[in-house]
Amino acid sequence: MHARAGVALNWKHHFRRLTADCEMLALALPDERDLLAEIARVAPEEATVKIIVTRGAGGRGYTPLRQPPTRVVAAFAPPNYPDSLRREGVRIRRCALVLSEQARVAGAKTLNRLENVLARGEWTDTDVREGLLGDAAGRLIEGTMSNVFLVKGGKAATPALKRCGVVGAQRERVRELLAGERIECTERDIAFEELVAADEVFLTGSLIGAWPVSEFGERRWIPGPVTRRVQALIDRQDAQTLEERDAQAR
Amino acid sequence: MHARAGVALNWKHHFRRLTADCEMLALALPDERDLLAEIARVAPEEATVKIIVTRGAGGRGYTPLRQPPTRVVAAFAPPNYPDSLRREGVRIRRCALVLSEQARVAGAKTLNRLENVLARGEWTDTDVREGLLGDAAGRLIEGTMSNVFLVKGGKAATPALKRCGVVGAQRERVRELLAGERIECTERDIAFEELVAADEVFLTGSLIGAWPVSEFGERRWIPGPVTRRVQALIDRQDAQTLEERDAQAR
Repeated sequence: MHARAGVALNWKHHFRRLTADCEMLALALPDERDLLAEIARVAPEEATVKIIVTRGAGGRGYTPLRQPPTRVVAAFAPPNYPDSLRREGVRIRRCALVLSEQARVAGAKTLNRLENVLARGEWTDTDVREGLLGDAAGRLIEGTMSNVFLVKGGKAATPALKRCGVVGAQRERVRELLAGERIECTERDIAFEELVAADEVFLTGSLIGAWPVSEFGERRWIPGPVTRRVQALIDRQDAQTLEERDAQAR
Repeated sequence: MHARAGVALNWKHHFRRLTADCEMLALALPDERDLLAEIARVAPEEATVKIIVTRGAGGRGYTPLRQPPTRVVAAFAPPNYPDSLRREGVRIRRCALVLSEQARVAGAKTLNRLENVLARGEWTDTDVREGLLGDAAGRLIEGTMSNVFLVKGGKAATPALKRCGVVGAQRERVRELLAGERIECTERDIAFEELVAADEVFLTGSLIGAWPVSEFGERRWIPGPVTRRVQALIDRQDAQTLEERDAQAR
């Protein structure tokens, strides 16, 4: 998560993600007030914050024991991506790795991220900011660290994530923000081929906000109006969150 | 691994597994002599030993950095399964969880074992000693902590593990031992339905050796001759390993 002044931005969707994932994995959900207090403590200024919930300390073996989970709330250096990325857009590629399908945990942000590590290891060119991943049927699913949105004819779409992929907190916020603007955004199966036909493509992530995609293979884009609108809406909501926090602090 | 008197039993196949997996994951392979010395140190008597190789300590993010890997060699309490399990056999069940397919890491023993934890969490009846897992096409793949062998008409078979599953060190030893006895053992796709039609079914694992399956659903078996032969061959090889070690120590 991106935290500023002791507050996790987009907290509502982060906590929803955590709630859903704890239920999916049969882990006791940490108390929300505890988490908020801990975030304020570890990230008094700007930071990247990570919440990890594990099944707790146990012995060897796969049997999931009923014991108190371990909760980690950790702060790292804040993201410092150059502003040009959100302004001008990013170059992306397609990864060779094909995501496996596991409906049982699809959408969840578990700690089993080997596929992401292997996919991210496919390129070293620092100008390429993200790699897109697909499933065995050739559907576009997500980036290694982001979700993907396409815009065509003023309508947005983002891949359905019922079989694989992570339902990112920023993705969920963007869907909500688009709905609030009456910009249609459907969740559906998207073939990789649709990508180059799109008018706009953008990536979402908690640390990146919304990055326009400017280059994929031979295709070039300039950041479009829906992408710009999404960026502005995210910024406005984050500013409101910080204002509310200031008002409470006074 | 099962270690006795400072020696890891079936070391050849364990080190092959580690070698293959390090290459698959682009991790530097630890020096074999270092590992053998560390096993002797952590497990001077009987123990369960675990070797873990990680990509090393790094920052956040999925980018696999080129840094020295971290090597963990840890000893745990030795397995203490009742002898009746290998003598009389075990009751097993089928798990509802369907294994995902990821050819990129199929066969490897990575630390991404969420599926095994979820599958093992499907039952609490302590009389059920193992759960079998299949893939989306209904093929039998493996147990949550073991590999599976079927025997029919004197010929053995074990599931091909090109799409998912762990190629266990004990599985590989058993295949080698069977070949040495001129007992045919094929690696192939096996439908779940073949299980009940088998004359013998047994499970292999480093800590369990070879367990005959005595009960699966309505089907009952008494331990058969191939299973008994495999158990005897494992025992003989382990005894030889310990004799050689004693000879060297003198």
